[in-house]
Amino acid sequence: MASSTPKIYVAVVGVGLVGSEFINQLLAIPSSSSPFHLISLTSTTRTVFNHTHPISSSSWKSELSNSADRPDLPKLTQQLSALVSPTQKVALIDNTSSEDVAALYPTWLNAGISVITPNKKAFSGDISLYEAIVAAASKTGGGRFLNEATVGAGLPIISTLKDLVATGDKVVKIEGVFSGTMSYIFNEYSTGKPDGPAFSSVVKIAREKGYTEPHPADDLNGADVARKLTILSRVISATSPRLQSFASVETTSLIPPALENIATGDEFIARLPEFDDHFQKMRAAASSDGQVLRFVGVVDVASGQVRAGLERYPTTHPFATSLGGSDNIIMFHTERYGTRPLIVQGAGAGAAVTAMGVLGDLLKLT
Amino acid sequence: MASSTPKIYVAVVGVGLVGSEFINQLLAIPSSSSPFHLISLTSTTRTVFNHTHPISSSSWKSELSNSADRPDLPKLTQQLSALVSPTQKVALIDNTSSEDVAALYPTWLNAGISVITPNKKAFSGDISLYEAIVAAASKTGGGRFLNEATVGAGLPIISTLKDLVATGDKVVKIEGVFSGTMSYIFNEYSTGKPDGPAFSSVVKIAREKGYTEPHPADDLNGADVARKLTILSRVISATSPRLQSFASVETTSLIPPALENIATGDEFIARLPEFDDHFQKMRAAASSDGQVLRFVGVVDVASGQVRAGLERYPTTHPFATSLGGSDNIIMFHTERYGTRPLIVQGAGAGAAVTAMGVLGDLLKLT
Repeated sequence: MASSTPKIYVAVVGVGLVGSEFINQLLAIPSSSSPFHLISLTSTTRTVFNHTHPISSSSWKSELSNSADRPDLPKLTQQLSALVSPTQKVALIDNTSSEDVAALYPTWLNAGISVITPNKKAFSGDISLYEAIVAAASKTGGGRFLNEATVGAGLPIISTLKDLVATGDKVVKIEGVFSGTMSYIFNEYSTGKPDGPAFSSVVKIAREKGYTEPHPADDLNGADVARKLTILSRVISATSPRLQSFASVETTSLIPPALENIATGDEFIARLPEFDDHFQKMRAAASSDGQVLRFVGVVDVASGQVRAGLERYPTTHPFATSLGGSDNIIMFHTERYGTRPLIVQGAGAGAAVTAMGVLGDLLKLT
Repeated sequence: MASSTPKIYVAVVGVGLVGSEFINQLLAIPSSSSPFHLISLTSTTRTVFNHTHPISSSSWKSELSNSADRPDLPKLTQQLSALVSPTQKVALIDNTSSEDVAALYPTWLNAGISVITPNKKAFSGDISLYEAIVAAASKTGGGRFLNEATVGAGLPIISTLKDLVATGDKVVKIEGVFSGTMSYIFNEYSTGKPDGPAFSSVVKIAREKGYTEPHPADDLNGADVARKLTILSRVISATSPRLQSFASVETTSLIPPALENIATGDEFIARLPEFDDHFQKMRAAASSDGQVLRFVGVVDVASGQVRAGLERYPTTHPFATSLGGSDNIIMFHTERYGTRPLIVQGAGAGAAVTAMGVLGDLLKLT
């Protein structure tokens, strides 16, 4: 909390929903108490860089839209590297979901630029990129890498797991509903009763509400959950088998095989009712055992198994009683917490809470 | 996570249950990756200080018990102050619950020594001490003050609240079961049914299990909850009325007036059955409305009210369905989280998880 915090220059790549919200939150910090100077913005088509006249809240959109400069990440890397010094920090905020941007993290970190991101691609992708990031962030003079918002958005998930591991607790199992979309779908679909709305109708409504990707198969394939599990597994990699990539997670997709290669979301939604009986049988079977269906992710450290798929929980379990809306819920079963896990729950998606998770990481640099 | 972290000298005051566990956790960090040097221990009767030969895990108990030096906090202050430099940090860990130790925090912080503590006395006591701590921690060259473990032990409560506030979210209400003792008592006593075990028998068992203070009135008076609410209120003091001291919390004690001044825990337990009818009436009334009784703390930012007392919740509420054992559960209702709060739940007391909260704070200095 010392007021002598060094100046921190901030460059933002990606100004979509999360990026815009992040910029607004950052610029809303009273300048009297803010060490941050927003000096660069990059969209898919334009870029601005001005480290002598930081960007202000009233003008950032027009400054970017009026710029004649095209995005040039190698040039940005040079410009930012030149600003790193013992009395000045530089942070690059990647608010894209681009693998190309993620591939540049080691370069930035090696140059002493801290990287903060809600982009899951880097830490859940190929092991070589992951290891290059860890190596660069660990070396003397390297930037810090923070990605709290990749799992649970603004919820304290990664920081809590890091603290458990760093203080010597033994993680036994992490178990949770990690996808807001899957949470909404199954909170609506499976309430413990044998019947209810058709699966296809719940997915259709979720899509209309904007809770799914344009093509719902991109949620129902479970890949988003698998990526989040990979990120968490790597945080505890000292005690659990390190995953080679997110494809190593045993993921049970909910996409019916016959709909695997449907090109458009509209066609997918149109054909999904053919499979309502399939889901209804699972719902009824669970109900007859006093259970609900939830699409969960599990990191089982003891067995080394990491899996994403549809599982059953008693109607008295917090995944049934406590969950609602599109909440995430994550349970950390550890040695110190014994038989009753540490639980974090709340909205795990949305621009405001995701941007908050990113800004929370940036505040750790002060 | 740069490996060039400066050396951090650590002095521990208080080596009881939490203190001992903290020392063991600290010394279990592999020395190859630990920037920490444990250089001083102080108990109620002895002290050791040796900054050239840091204390090791095998010898700390004998080093302390073999010391001929009596505790001398003014001398320790001088010794630690002399070690503060741009390349060396010093942290004092107060694992006592002493007001006298808490009164020294401003001195230490002003000397550049960081203070980390699960001791609630400082931040929940008189406003002048609180303000002196904040001022000292804010000044150039001041130490950092961290007290995550004062609320919810190892659970991420204070850090989450700080992030919400610092990123510009508006806290509407904080509501929770903050006392592990009260949690256990009412999870056992009030399950939604009209009848159950006598209140006095639940308290008696809780005491036998070591869940209460030796004198159960020290839990039933609600002061522990009031202190925690004061700490949280002060974190959001920019937007809510700052409390003058923990006595300002509207606390409804559970101690029957006739038992207010009973000297011993044994006598208190012996006389508590006289009031079983009183509690039974409340339980039955709640049950007839489909509700349970929970001893909660509430910080209502809109109304400026901060209160601790017995309240009723529907049997479908997470305080009824999700809570068990001696768990804490805390709900943050905020503008960004909308109608569904951010929830943190888990054990909120016990040496292992409290020490973990303290060590997690210490790791923030790296």
